[in-house]
Order: sequence, then C-alpha cells, then structure tokens
Amino acid sequence: MLYILIGIAEALCVAALVLVGIWMGVYRGGVAWDGSTSEFNVHPIMMTLGLIVFNGNALMLYRACRRTPHVWVKTAHVVLHCLALICACVALAAVWQYHDANGLPNVYSIHSWIGITVFILFAVQWLIGLFMFAFPCASLQQRDRYKPLHIFLGVFIFGGACAAALIGIEDKLMLSISTTYSSRPPEAYVANFFGYVILALAAVVTFIVTFAPWKRPEDIASEWQPIVTSTPARGLNIQEPSDL
Amino acid sequence: MLYILIGIAEALCVAALVLVGIWMGVYRGGVAWDGSTSEFNVHPIMMTLGLIVFNGNALMLYRACRRTPHVWVKTAHVVLHCLALICACVALAAVWQYHDANGLPNVYSIHSWIGITVFILFAVQWLIGLFMFAFPCASLQQRDRYKPLHIFLGVFIFGGACAAALIGIEDKLMLSISTTYSSRPPEAYVANFFGYVILALAAVVTFIVTFAPWKRPEDIASEWQPIVTSTPARGLNIQEPSDL
Repeated sequence: MLYILIGIAEALCVAALVLVGIWMGVYRGGVAWDGSTSEFNVHPIMMTLGLIVFNGNALMLYRACRRTPHVWVKTAHVVLHCLALICACVALAAVWQYHDANGLPNVYSIHSWIGITVFILFAVQWLIGLFMFAFPCASLQQRDRYKPLHIFLGVFIFGGACAAALIGIEDKLMLSISTTYSSRPPEAYVANFFGYVILALAAVVTFIVTFAPWKRPEDIASEWQPIVTSTPARGLNIQEPSDL
Repeated sequence: MLYILIGIAEALCVAALVLVGIWMGVYRGGVAWDGSTSEFNVHPIMMTLGLIVFNGNALMLYRACRRTPHVWVKTAHVVLHCLALICACVALAAVWQYHDANGLPNVYSIHSWIGITVFILFAVQWLIGLFMFAFPCASLQQRDRYKPLHIFLGVFIFGGACAAALIGIEDKLMLSISTTYSSRPPEAYVANFFGYVILALAAVVTFIVTFAPWKRPEDIASEWQPIVTSTPARGLNIQEPSDL
C-alpha cells in the first residue's frame, strides 16, 4: 500500500508540472527573463518544482527508501531540499524582477504574505536541519528533542507551500482572466485542475509521511553519523520493512 | 506547554472571528439575507465559525480535556462537529442564494472547487464518524483499524478548510478591491492579517493534535461505549495526564 501511494504521489507530481507547464506555456506565453509577463511565468513553474515536487519527495524519502542505509537517505534528503531552495529562490527572483521592471509593488497580496512566510520557514528549517542533522553541531540528546519539531515543521511547511500555491492560482486567474473566469474557459479548467492535483498531492504526501506503521525503523548508529565523515551504515540494525 | 498552546489557539480563534467580522461588518456593509452582497458576507463569517473555529476546537478537545471521561469528550466532539456542519451549510446556502439572486454562476473558481471538496470530505467524515464511533455499528476491530484514518482525515480536512479560507480571502479581495489592493488600503491589511491568523491557527492546532507525547491515554472500556447508552466512565482506567 505504501508503494502504491508513493506511485500515486509521483504521478501527481508529474501531473502538477505538466498542468502548470501547459498553463504558463500555452495560455500565458511561455517563459523568459526579460521583465515581461513571461518572466513572471517562471514563478509558478519553479515554485511548483521546488517547494512542492522536490520538497514533497524529500519528505517521502524516509518512507520510500526504508531498505536504504540512513546516511544515503539523509544525503538525498539534503540534496532534494537544496534543489528546492534553489528553485524557490529563482521563483522569488523572477516575480520580484518582473514587479520591479513594471513598476508594480511587491508583497501586498495575501498570496505573497503567506508565500514569503512559508519560504522563510523553509529556509530557516533547512539551515537548522543542516547544522542539527547533516553536519551536526548538536548533541544526540538535543537532536532527539528537536527531531519531532523538525518533522512537524517539514510537513507543515509542505502543506503551507501547497496552500500558497492554491492562493497563487486564484490570484493569477483573477489578474489575467477575471472577466471570463466565471464562464469557465479552458484555461480556468487547466488552472483549477492544477489546484486539485496539488490538494490531492498534499493529502497523499502527508498521509505517507505521518502514518505511524510506515515509520522507518530507528537506526541510531547511522543517524548519529554526520554526512561528511560517515560511511554507509549498511547492515547496521536495519530491519526488513513490511510493505503494508 | 500544551495548555499555553491551547490558550494561543483560542486567542487566534477569537482574532479570526473579530477580523472577519470587522472585514465584513465595517468594509463590506454587514450581513443580511436579501440577495445583496450583504448576504454573501454571511459566507466567510459562518465558514470561519464552522469549519475553522468549531472544527478546530473539536479536534483539540481530545488533547485539551485529558482529565475528562472519554464519553463526555466524545459527546462534545460530536456536538462541536454538528455545529460546524450547520454553520458550513448556512455559509454555503448564503453564497449559493446570493449567486442565484444576481445571476452569477456557481462553482467555477478554484476557491469553490477546493471549498466544496473540503465540505464534502467533512460531511462524509462526520457521517462515518457518527456511525463508527458515536453510535457504533462497527466492531471494535473495525473501529481500531479505521481510527488512524479518521484522525488523519480530521486534521487534513481542518488544514484544507484553512487553505480554502485563504484562497477565499484572495478571491474576495480581487473581486472587491482589485484596483486598490496593491496600494495596501486598510481593508487589505485587515483581510491579510485575517489570513495570517488562519495560517497561525492551522500551525498551532495541527501541532497540538499531532504531537505524540500529548496523546490522550487509551481508555478502551469507555471508548467502546456508544454515547446514547453509556454512563460516564469516570475512574475507569483514566491515567493522570502530565502537562508537558
């Protein structure tokens, strides 16, 4: 059941990227980096790729790769979060530069308020996680105490990113097709289905990540090892997972 | 710490109701049931009261009332969810009737798609919960198997309701003050802060409800008792909770 849900989650990730690609590519004129609305279009694509697809996959890794040594999963978790952070920074730069190039104010809408809050939480969590878990400067006790908060915040930030995306879809539609939106043109269906896919993805990922019986077996020995000096912990207290 | 967070959650519930009240009352002309925009204003107020405040409190009950016999907590959980369902129905009726009275189409925006999906999930979960737990038609084994899904869905529906509210705030602002929104009029601050309070409430409630050490002690004897025939299970295997 776990791997079926992971398959569904991956299909939803692909669907989200395809739908945002069609929306921005077919209906909104594609992407560019020239101050035009095509530069704005980089924003939803890169945010979807970063804070939803890469971020969601980083969360699922610990459940998906239950047979893989902990240090490898942790490395992939860090790499995916780095990719997510880079994508989110590019997405923010695109919308900021587009606003500046067109004399539009920044950070006035509820989408931008929630979106920037989620981004700051993500960046802070990434930084703390890097120093607490990847290249640890904290004791095992401190990390054990912080870990539940790290997991909660990770899931909450992913949910917040999905919510920010949904607000952003409404925002973009009201800015671009407000006069025709209520007559349900094809673009509205593409954007609404994109939102629906994000809602479904939020449900599937949070279930996979929080369902207690799918918890990865504890492997304290390799958990304690920082990425930079560790060797693969294969064979160290790794229990055979049951595919529930 | 648990009770401090519950206090913060209650303060955020009050803040959300005050802010949506000020937004609809001061800036949007108050409430009525006459087909005018004042009828629409019933929608955000009743949705906030129902699917966010009553729903959120229903979820927190099991953690907040850890000393209270299970059957009483369950009864209050059912009552709060009934109130939430009534409020949500009134809220849906208000917006539907307002649209019909003004020749506006229903269910075209991403807010309405997500909102109706969350409402249907809430109603189905309420119905299943009623027959599975309150007036049980299922065996103890079936209920034990379903319970984790009931809890996950409850938290997800609450998060979905918060997300739907945030999309709705963007929708309403773009419909009513789209030309002045970017110059940040006072109404924009009220609405944005309302959204911010909902985001904070989502964080606090989901943390309270999911943080493992605050789990209510299991009390199988009274858990099995249906509401209608049970007597208070005081003294039956109730452990003294520790206020973490």
